[in-house]
Amino acid sequence: MGGVRLAAVTSRLADSAYLRACRGEPGDRVPVWFQRQAGRSLPEYRAIRGTGSILDAIAQPDLATEITLQPVRRYGVDAAILYSDIVVPVHAIGFGVDIKPGVGPVVEQPFRSGADLERLRPLDPEADTPYVLQTVRNLVGELDVPLIGFAGAPFTVASYLIEGGPSRNYTVTKALMHGDPQLFGRLLDRLADLAIASVRSQVEAGASALQLFDSWAGALSREDYRRFVQPHTRKVVDAVADLGVPRAHFGVTTGELLAAIAETGVDVVGVDWRVPIDEARRRIPRPVTLQGNLDPGVLMAPIDVVESQVRAILDRNAGHPAFVFNLGHGVLPETDPDVLHRVVEVVHDEGRADGPADPRGSS
Amino acid sequence: MGGVRLAAVTSRLADSAYLRACRGEPGDRVPVWFQRQAGRSLPEYRAIRGTGSILDAIAQPDLATEITLQPVRRYGVDAAILYSDIVVPVHAIGFGVDIKPGVGPVVEQPFRSGADLERLRPLDPEADTPYVLQTVRNLVGELDVPLIGFAGAPFTVASYLIEGGPSRNYTVTKALMHGDPQLFGRLLDRLADLAIASVRSQVEAGASALQLFDSWAGALSREDYRRFVQPHTRKVVDAVADLGVPRAHFGVTTGELLAAIAETGVDVVGVDWRVPIDEARRRIPRPVTLQGNLDPGVLMAPIDVVESQVRAILDRNAGHPAFVFNLGHGVLPETDPDVLHRVVEVVHDEGRADGPADPRGSS
Repeated sequence: MGGVRLAAVTSRLADSAYLRACRGEPGDRVPVWFQRQAGRSLPEYRAIRGTGSILDAIAQPDLATEITLQPVRRYGVDAAILYSDIVVPVHAIGFGVDIKPGVGPVVEQPFRSGADLERLRPLDPEADTPYVLQTVRNLVGELDVPLIGFAGAPFTVASYLIEGGPSRNYTVTKALMHGDPQLFGRLLDRLADLAIASVRSQVEAGASALQLFDSWAGALSREDYRRFVQPHTRKVVDAVADLGVPRAHFGVTTGELLAAIAETGVDVVGVDWRVPIDEARRRIPRPVTLQGNLDPGVLMAPIDVVESQVRAILDRNAGHPAFVFNLGHGVLPETDPDVLHRVVEVVHDEGRADGPADPRGSS
Repeated sequence: MGGVRLAAVTSRLADSAYLRACRGEPGDRVPVWFQRQAGRSLPEYRAIRGTGSILDAIAQPDLATEITLQPVRRYGVDAAILYSDIVVPVHAIGFGVDIKPGVGPVVEQPFRSGADLERLRPLDPEADTPYVLQTVRNLVGELDVPLIGFAGAPFTVASYLIEGGPSRNYTVTKALMHGDPQLFGRLLDRLADLAIASVRSQVEAGASALQLFDSWAGALSREDYRRFVQPHTRKVVDAVADLGVPRAHFGVTTGELLAAIAETGVDVVGVDWRVPIDEARRRIPRPVTLQGNLDPGVLMAPIDVVESQVRAILDRNAGHPAFVFNLGHGVLPETDPDVLHRVVEVVHDEGRADGPADPRGSS
């Protein structure tokens, strides 16, 4: 199926606010979506999600389709993001990963030695994660905005496999990275292959853009990031260049890494709330689209405070067309959906994306 | 007791490597100490610490004295830091705080409303925390290096009181900060008073320097930090200026806050491993001493990697006398003490502090 229809979808959406911003082209509004816009903050999500592992929900295409659509309907955001998780590929190939409610990914037998590389066979997306592709195909038929596919970037997925779960200090990860850089590199290389296979299949099934989540790369110094992580992220970015879709990158506490992240060749760089947007742009010596950067904690504030912080970000961006409004991290479960709805209104009503196009072609 | 003897101690130590560096004066070596140098990483600590709450150990001056001395003896560091905790004052006045092993500070009834301000009466250090002062007095008689006293900065202590424990997103803290800035300000003002009383008493008992731990201030955007936090930290810094001891500040992910932190008037600014030392210096427009900034996770690496990262930091500092070598965060419990010992050797053998004095007088 799909070749002709897919081409039609792609061309229909090419002029969407989100994709124009990803290319640095002026448009009539600032696009906005929210990381983790689908999920626990929405009553309609809690109503249909059930209990059990999120991995079970992801494996049901009708449910995952509906969950992906919910925030698009409610908020009128400019992009949908696939309801899935960064550990889906490693789970699907049998590494022994689950997601514990209130905890996050947990790994039964953490990655410890060269022998564990054997547990990371290549991903065959049609055979291993058919439900993901079915969800993408469902969504492409339903959506009027671009669908963002995604994968975990090699470092962040590796941190879960090595630590055995979420971590505060990444002690074991750093020990392996410095102690056996060759093995660490082989692990990240395999995880890069998994990410490549996964996002390629999502785009081939109809996703219009992709995002790499390297949420925890900001735990590293710039030199360690450049040496141990950047080459593997770049491998993923390069390997999907031929797909012609924007490639975004997300991480927190990455203020010192922004230039190094841009060096991977990504088209869109996420910025958390610690770095003002105009400063982030000055730190990156090539034209990229910036995405961010409202503090998700600010959404707990009274609405006038939220609005004023949204406006401050729009002011900092000053009409630059290469900008996608988002949060600096995921929507917190406690967030009032009405507040997010108001953020979308303010961005759409007051944001300007009418500055000159950036010289993207020359990058 | 103490007036004459204290003056003698102070003048004996005035020329110590640590205090010279805090004043920005050239010396014959780069001073080094480690945050959380006393504690679980040391076998001699585990041998005497026993089980039970750390608050009980802190309340035993002989034990706390010995624990403070252990790393000084073992490593030959250039400063001791009092074995205590940032929640000691709020615990001592009966706010209902304990420290759970493996978790951190937990609060029985978190701070929620104006009524909770009543639970924060002023601290009378001699009556409420006599054991802290006894430990300081013991140490001053024993030590050949300066003793650093400390307190939690208002924001970080507030985050524990409001969240009820350690937090990942500071959701409740930010909700209160934005939702009721007046109450939040009154809370931080009281916590500033507690910090002032505590550090004043420690210095009067003989501590040669003090450090404010605002470990989690880096969770805030710069604008929110300047508006909601900086005035209260500045109040503490100002209120102890007459003591004539260096005032240091510590936090993580504060790369974007460095100038704002320096604006509080502190003499020493901690830098985590995310910002190279020379860049940190460029970001701060007044002469301050920088303290940092080895990634504590790097201490898990093979010794040649550790040494090379220590040398890279010394190279970045390039002999600037206003520099104290430290980690970018606390010593991790898994750390091998022999590695820390080697770090001290490398810093002492290879570090240079022979650059021109900075124009501190003009700041």
